[in-house]
Amino acid sequence: MKLHGIFPPITTPFSSDGALALDALRENVARYNRIRLGGYVVVGSTGESVLLSFEETERVWETVLEAAAPGKTLIAGTGVEATKETIERTNRAAALGYQVALVRTPHYYKPQMTPAVELEHFLRVADTARIPVLIYSVPQFTGLAVEADTVARLAEHPNIIGIKESSGNVQRVAEIIHATPRSFQTLVGSASTLYPSLALGAVGAILAVACVLPELCVELYEASRAGDTERASTLQDRLLAPTLKLVAELGIPGIKYAMDWLSYYGGPARRPLLPLTDAQKREVETVLAAVAPVSAPGK
Amino acid sequence: MKLHGIFPPITTPFSSDGALALDALRENVARYNRIRLGGYVVVGSTGESVLLSFEETERVWETVLEAAAPGKTLIAGTGVEATKETIERTNRAAALGYQVALVRTPHYYKPQMTPAVELEHFLRVADTARIPVLIYSVPQFTGLAVEADTVARLAEHPNIIGIKESSGNVQRVAEIIHATPRSFQTLVGSASTLYPSLALGAVGAILAVACVLPELCVELYEASRAGDTERASTLQDRLLAPTLKLVAELGIPGIKYAMDWLSYYGGPARRPLLPLTDAQKREVETVLAAVAPVSAPGK
Amino acid sequence: MKLHGIFPPITTPFSSDGALALDALRENVARYNRIRLGGYVVVGSTGESVLLSFEETERVWETVLEAAAPGKTLIAGTGVEATKETIERTNRAAALGYQVALVRTPHYYKPQMTPAVELEHFLRVADTARIPVLIYSVPQFTGLAVEADTVARLAEHPNIIGIKESSGNVQRVAEIIHATPRSFQTLVGSASTLYPSLALGAVGAILAVACVLPELCVELYEASRAGDTERASTLQDRLLAPTLKLVAELGIPGIKYAMDWLSYYGGPARRPLLPLTDAQKREVETVLAAVAPVSAPGK
Amino acid sequence: MKLHGIFPPITTPFSSDGALALDALRENVARYNRIRLGGYVVVGSTGESVLLSFEETERVWETVLEAAAPGKTLIAGTGVEATKETIERTNRAAALGYQVALVRTPHYYKPQMTPAVELEHFLRVADTARIPVLIYSVPQFTGLAVEADTVARLAEHPNIIGIKESSGNVQRVAEIIHATPRSFQTLVGSASTLYPSLALGAVGAILAVACVLPELCVELYEASRAGDTERASTLQDRLLAPTLKLVAELGIPGIKYAMDWLSYYGGPARRPLLPLTDAQKREVETVLAAVAPVSAPGK
Repeated sequence: MKLHGIFPPITTPFSSDGALALDALRENVARYNRIRLGGYVVVGSTGESVLLSFEETERVWETVLEAAAPGKTLIAGTGVEATKETIERTNRAAALGYQVALVRTPHYYKPQMTPAVELEHFLRVADTARIPVLIYSVPQFTGLAVEADTVARLAEHPNIIGIKESSGNVQRVAEIIHATPRSFQTLVGSASTLYPSLALGAVGAILAVACVLPELCVELYEASRAGDTERASTLQDRLLAPTLKLVAELGIPGIKYAMDWLSYYGGPARRPLLPLTDAQKREVETVLAAVAPVSAPGK
Repeated sequence: MKLHGIFPPITTPFSSDGALALDALRENVARYNRIRLGGYVVVGSTGESVLLSFEETERVWETVLEAAAPGKTLIAGTGVEATKETIERTNRAAALGYQVALVRTPHYYKPQMTPAVELEHFLRVADTARIPVLIYSVPQFTGLAVEADTVARLAEHPNIIGIKESSGNVQRVAEIIHATPRSFQTLVGSASTLYPSLALGAVGAILAVACVLPELCVELYEASRAGDTERASTLQDRLLAPTLKLVAELGIPGIKYAMDWLSYYGGPARRPLLPLTDAQKREVETVLAAVAPVSAPGK
Repeated sequence: MKLHGIFPPITTPFSSDGALALDALRENVARYNRIRLGGYVVVGSTGESVLLSFEETERVWETVLEAAAPGKTLIAGTGVEATKETIERTNRAAALGYQVALVRTPHYYKPQMTPAVELEHFLRVADTARIPVLIYSVPQFTGLAVEADTVARLAEHPNIIGIKESSGNVQRVAEIIHATPRSFQTLVGSASTLYPSLALGAVGAILAVACVLPELCVELYEASRAGDTERASTLQDRLLAPTLKLVAELGIPGIKYAMDWLSYYGGPARRPLLPLTDAQKREVETVLAAVAPVSAPGK
Repeated sequence: MKLHGIFPPITTPFSSDGALALDALRENVARYNRIRLGGYVVVGSTGESVLLSFEETERVWETVLEAAAPGKTLIAGTGVEATKETIERTNRAAALGYQVALVRTPHYYKPQMTPAVELEHFLRVADTARIPVLIYSVPQFTGLAVEADTVARLAEHPNIIGIKESSGNVQRVAEIIHATPRSFQTLVGSASTLYPSLALGAVGAILAVACVLPELCVELYEASRAGDTERASTLQDRLLAPTLKLVAELGIPGIKYAMDWLSYYGGPARRPLLPLTDAQKREVETVLAAVAPVSAPGK
C-alpha cells in the first residue's frame, strides 16, 4: 500500500442549515479527481471529525467512496479517544471499502498518555484492524507528539504502515525517518515545511492547504521528486503565505472560504468555529490572488 | 443555585468486561451520601466522559439521579466539541432532573479557539440551556485556559453562574474572583491549591481526589470556612501527596485503584488508560496509608 | 537568621545620563527605613543586576549598607552564571557586611541545567560562602524552576537557609514547604499570590511591588500573621491590579515610573529596557490611584 | 561580507586549573584552518561566553585572530544584556580586527522583551557598531525567538547583514528567508535541520557540532550547494545522531569530550557545567565511531 504523493484531508461540506451537503462533496471530489493527487483522507481533522456524529461520518465516507476516481487511495479518519471505538470505526471503514485508517493519538488525559499507553493503543488497534493503520500525530490539536522512538517501535507491527506527522518539526521528521525502516512511510502534515521534509525522505503529505491549492502542492511534490531543487524551493516559498494564513491562523473557516473563492464548495464550518469576518475574508483573497497564476484552475 | 462545598466528579464504574457497573455506582453514591458533600458531578473528565457513548452517559446520569440523597446538588458534565451537541446534551440532562450543566471549553481546533469563539460558544449554550451553566476550564486536559477577562464577560450572562477552574493557577483564580461579581461562583478543580483558593474567595471545589478522600476534602473546606487557618493549613499539607500521586500522576486508574483499596468500587478504567503496575499500586497504598487516620471511613 | 516579613528588592537609580544616582538611592532607603519592612535585597533582578558592571554592583551594595536602618536584614544578589564568580561575589558581599546571599539558578545552558548541575552549583557555593545562602528560583526570567525535591536536598546543607520562590506557582510553594524542615525559610516572589503562600506557611516575601507599595505589602503580611483572613483577602485583592500591571506587564520601567509618581526616585531603566509610553504611564497612574488610600504616604 | 559555508563557534579551552589554555586554542584553530570552513565564531554560546570575564574574552579574541588562516571570516560574539556594553564589546572586537559581530538577543527580562525592545536594541547597536551585525536568535538558551517580521524590519538597516537562527524551527527559517531581501544572509544554528534549511535558501550555518565534525558539516554543505540531493540527504542522516547526543543532550561538556576523543583539545568546561559521567563518555564514543569513516581526519 503505497502512500506517495499529496492527499487532501477533504473538508465536510454543510448547507446553510448545518446539514451535510453531500452533493457538494461529490462535486468537490469530482474536481479533485482530475488532479494528480495520491488520494483522499476522509473525515480527518480538516473534515471536522470532532463535530460530526458517527452516522454523519459514515455518510461522508460512503459518499467519497462513490465519488472518488479509481486509483485514488482512500484513507478514513477513524481515531477517537477510546481504543474500542477506534477499532469499531476502523473496521466499519474497512467494511465500506477504505484502504487505510488514519488513527489519531488519544490525548484527552494528557498526563497519563505515556509512551506505554500510546504504544498499547496503537498496537491493539493494529492487531484488530482489517486495513493498515497510519499513525496520526498532530500536536497543534492534541497537545501530544509521538516521539521517534515510539514510532520506531510501532513500525515493527506489520499492520502499521506509516505516520502522518503534522507537527511541522522537521527535526522530528528526520528522527522518525532515521529510526524506521525504508518500508515505513512518513507523510507530513505541514505544508510550510513540505519540501524540506521531502528532501529528508518523507514520501508524501496530507495537507489541509491541498483542499484549496491542490495543483500547487502536487507541483511542489513533483519538482522535489524530479530533483528540481530550484523550482521546489520557489514553489515552497509560494506556498508559505497561504499556509500560514489559511491553515495556521484561520483554520477550517479560512480553508472553506478559500475553497468558495476558488469555485469549490466550501460553505460554513460547524460551531463553535465562527465564520470569517470581512477583514479576514479580504486577507484570504489577498494571499490567494498572489498564488493564483499557479493554482487557479482553467488558467 | 448555591454551589458551595466539595463535589466529587464521580468515577464511572465498569465491570471486568468493560460494561457499565451501575450497581457499583449506586453503592458508591450511597456511601458518598453520608458525607457532607455539596453534591456530585456526573460524567465529567474523571467520569471518563470522553470514553463513553451518549447512551452510556444517559444511563449514568439516570443512575446517580436515583441514588443521590435529597439536598445533594447534581451537576451533569455536558460539554463536547460541537456547540449544538453540547446544547442537546445539556437539555437532556435538564430533562432528567439535573440542576446544573458543567460545560467544558471546546478545544480541539486550538489555534482557532480565540476568546471570541469561546465566548460565542458559551453564550449560545447559556441562551438555550434550560438549567444554569458552569464554565469548565481544564487546561491540563484541553490545552486551553479561559482567561479572567473572558470569564468576566461570560459572568454577565444570567444563566452562567460560575466556573470550575482546574488549572491550579492560583493567580488566575484570584484574577477571576477579582473580575467577577460576588454572585458569580468560583469553584476550583485543584486539590493541591484548595485552601489558598478558598482563602481568596473560591466558594467550593470539584476535586477528583474527593472521589477517594471525601472526608478529608470536606474537613479542609470546613476548617477554611471556620477561619481555622492552622487546621486548614495542616489538612492542606496532608492532602498534597495523595493529590500529586493519584490525580496529577496516575489519573483515573490511580483514583479507581485507591477507591478499591478504600472499599469503594473503583474497577478498571477504559482503554487507552492502562491498569496500574504493581509498583504503582504500592505507591498508591503508601500515600493512602499516610492519610488514613483522617480519611478511612468508620473511624 | 530570620527572614520573616516583606523585603523590597530595591531598584538601582540612574541619573538621566545613565550613571548611578547614589544619593537618590540613599533617599529611597531612608524612606523605606520608616516602614516595617524586614530588610532589603540589593542588586537583585529588580535592581537591574544583569545591566550593571561588578564595580557598580559594589557601589550600590556599599551605599545601601550605609543607608539602611539598624535591624533591617541585608541580602545581596550575588548569583551569576559561573560558579566561581558567584562565590567571589558572595564573599565580597560578605566582606562588606551583607548578611545573606541571594543566589540565582544558573540557566543559560538550559538543556544541561539538570537537577544534578543545579545541586552541585548551590552546594559548592554554600560550602564556600561566608554568609548563608538563599536559593533564587525565578523561571519567568531564567526559564528554569527549582523543583521541590531539589530544594529538599539543598535544605540539608547547613549554609542554605531558604528559597525565594518567584514562579507564582502556589502548588510548588506547597510542595517545597511540605518537603523541607520547618527551619528552612520559604519566601515567595509573587505578590499576586502572597496571601495564599503565607497561608500555606511561607514566612515572607521579596516583592518588586514592595518597591512601590511597601505599606500595602506589609499590611497584608501582618493581617495574614494575625489570622485576620477577611482583611488579608481584601488587601490581596487590592494588590492584584498593581502587581499585574507594574510587575508582570511593565517590569522595571513600570516600577520606576510608579516610584516617581509616588515621590520615590524611580528614574530611567537601562537599555534595552525602554521608557514607558504615555499610554502606559496613564495606566500606571490609574492602578496606583485605585490603591492610593492605603499606600500613599502622608495622604 | 559573505557569510557562506560552515562556521564552528569554537570552544574556549581551559587547562585543568580552569585558566585559559591559549596554546590549545591555537592548535585547534590551526587544524580547523586546513578544512574548507567559512570562518570562525569566537566567544559565542559554545565558547562559554557567559562563563568568561571580558578580559578573558579579549584574550580569546586576540588568540584566534592571530591563529586564523587568511580568508577565514572572523565573527566575534559580542552580545550581552545591556545595550551599551554590547556596543562597547562590538567596537572592541572591531578594533582588534574582527569582521562581523554576532549579537544575541537580550532576554533576561523576558516579559518586557517585546519586539519593540528587541528592535531598538539591535538598531542602536547597528547604528554605532563599526562592523556589520549578525542577529543571534537562540531560544533554547534565551527562551526568546526573534520572529520573521522583526527580522524583516531589522534587515532594512544597512549594517545588519544577516541572522544566525538557532531554533531548529524550519518553518521560521522559511518565513525569515521569505520576509527578507536576497542580500540578507540567513545562517542556521541547528545541524539536525541543516540540509532542509540550505534547501530553502539558508546560505550557511554556525554549528556547535562543527567544532567536532567539521569535515562532515562541510561535505553536507557542499553536497547541498552542488544539488547532490541524494548525498546531502545521506550526510544529513549521518549527522543526526551526533548532533542530538553532543549538542542537544550533553552540550559543551559533550562537545569538548568528543573533541578530546578526536585529538582536538577539548578539556574541561567551566562550572556549573559538569564533566561527563563515564556512561555519557561511552555514548559519545559510540556516536562518533558510527560517523568516523567520514569525519576522522587522517584515517
